[in-house]
Amino acid sequence: MYIGIDIGGMSIKAGIVNENGDILAKCAVPTPKNDNKVMLEAMLEAIEKAMAEAGVKKEDIEAIGIGNPGVVDREKGVLVEAVNIGYTDLPVREFLQKHIGPVPVMVENDANCAALGEYYKAENSKNFVFITLGTGVGGGIIINGKLFTGANGAAGELGHIVTHFEGRACSCGRRGCWETYASVTGLIKTTEEHRHEIKGIAPNEEISGRTVFDLARKGDKDAERVRDMWIEEVAIGIVDMVNIFQPDCILIGGAISKEGDTILLPIIDYVNKNAFCSERLTKPKIEISKIGGDAGIIGAALIYKNSL
Amino acid sequence: MYIGIDIGGMSIKAGIVNENGDILAKCAVPTPKNDNKVMLEAMLEAIEKAMAEAGVKKEDIEAIGIGNPGVVDREKGVLVEAVNIGYTDLPVREFLQKHIGPVPVMVENDANCAALGEYYKAENSKNFVFITLGTGVGGGIIINGKLFTGANGAAGELGHIVTHFEGRACSCGRRGCWETYASVTGLIKTTEEHRHEIKGIAPNEEISGRTVFDLARKGDKDAERVRDMWIEEVAIGIVDMVNIFQPDCILIGGAISKEGDTILLPIIDYVNKNAFCSERLTKPKIEISKIGGDAGIIGAALIYKNSL
Repeated sequence: MYIGIDIGGMSIKAGIVNENGDILAKCAVPTPKNDNKVMLEAMLEAIEKAMAEAGVKKEDIEAIGIGNPGVVDREKGVLVEAVNIGYTDLPVREFLQKHIGPVPVMVENDANCAALGEYYKAENSKNFVFITLGTGVGGGIIINGKLFTGANGAAGELGHIVTHFEGRACSCGRRGCWETYASVTGLIKTTEEHRHEIKGIAPNEEISGRTVFDLARKGDKDAERVRDMWIEEVAIGIVDMVNIFQPDCILIGGAISKEGDTILLPIIDYVNKNAFCSERLTKPKIEISKIGGDAGIIGAALIYKNSL
Repeated sequence: MYIGIDIGGMSIKAGIVNENGDILAKCAVPTPKNDNKVMLEAMLEAIEKAMAEAGVKKEDIEAIGIGNPGVVDREKGVLVEAVNIGYTDLPVREFLQKHIGPVPVMVENDANCAALGEYYKAENSKNFVFITLGTGVGGGIIINGKLFTGANGAAGELGHIVTHFEGRACSCGRRGCWETYASVTGLIKTTEEHRHEIKGIAPNEEISGRTVFDLARKGDKDAERVRDMWIEEVAIGIVDMVNIFQPDCILIGGAISKEGDTILLPIIDYVNKNAFCSERLTKPKIEISKIGGDAGIIGAALIYKNSL
């Protein structure tokens, strides 16, 4: 049995996961802020609650994995930082091994955990690219069945490729990164830029990632046009990923992916028309994530298994 | 001993290569056009000449590899096409095994062969991205010491990522691909676009990839500005590759890479300033290819070794 921890801004989720990636029990505790010691104790509390719920004993645990919303030190088993939560150099391996026993404790970036979780629930894929559309555009890469983290562990920042030379300012310091257009934040910005053209938006209405999707569903052609501009921005980067990786599957996640075929079908069409790929070759499947929020727990739990 | 064949538009080069990637002998024959049978015989002739020169017998050959300027079928050992040379479905494995013996005959895209050749001559690298700046922008990816070709064999079209949304038309059908700006063709186009600003260019002078480099060396500030615009275009895509792969080394090849530090130093500076990478992590080395034209032979020869 494996334990996966997904650290989020609001809660720490712990799950008991079997080797197939099925969650047998899970629970959550609130995420403490700015306190290393309380943070470690909260993680232990979440683990112990999940273990109690599943009736799992310490000796049944094969490995523990933690997905961190920030930088990790895999060799030392330390969560180096999580800017939004306010801890630094959290020695989780040392702490958990002291309280739970001498099991492997693995640490990984949270987007990589989500990619790994999705990978274990996808079928027949060895080369797999996961793209998550949220506040930013995150990602994770599986190559020959293994999580790919590059030479320094920081690979897979797929949102930080420039698609718009000298375009929108990005949090990374560059201009025109894919995520400044293809993220939900980018969609909101594009909607704001075009709000005067969309009659369905009331003067003081706050724009969200759903605004143009909801209006388009009601038949608003201007909203539909803005929605489709955003879908094209997503598709451009996905074709880039196809041309670089030619994976067998590209999976799209993030809350907005629940829009399903409204997003997926035009992306597939765009990829078929634009990917650099001989007609004689198989093109990657492009799909929408089906697991969603639990992918981080599943992936964290299976980091150790994937590392073997 | 390994044999590597590099098929170019002008000549077929064959080399006898040892397992360290050293070329012991090489020779070239002219590339026949539009004739499958003559093409196969020319390849055999090149191999036999190189073998004779090196004093290598059939029984000393461990494997043969062929780099094709086009699509290959690795499983069948067939060169599917090479549009510029005019053959299709060339059964090289079957032909060479009939004439040389039952040795492994591997086929690969020529850019991938060059990447593999460079990789075997690079030191201490397991995650390696090779970028070649020529008529287009080509590339090859080595991950964990193995040539990465994706699920369908066509991965690594690094020049075909969009850096300029709705930019220059690309041969692949999209607009704004990196190679339309960062290739030598892109440099020539940018120079043409700015030629009226560069006094050193005579009215009827034909622009080449060297024009702005040569003028800048003589102190022409306008040429220097255009040269630096091009270097920035190259650097943008290299930062993209760093953010995606975080390799231990990015190697830059192609004839224009002979400009050396003039290109390399500003690229390194740009990557240091722009790559998405914590200060605590090691950044990739960025270097200029030192082997150049023989990389294709070396890589072709060692495809089999790399596949083990």
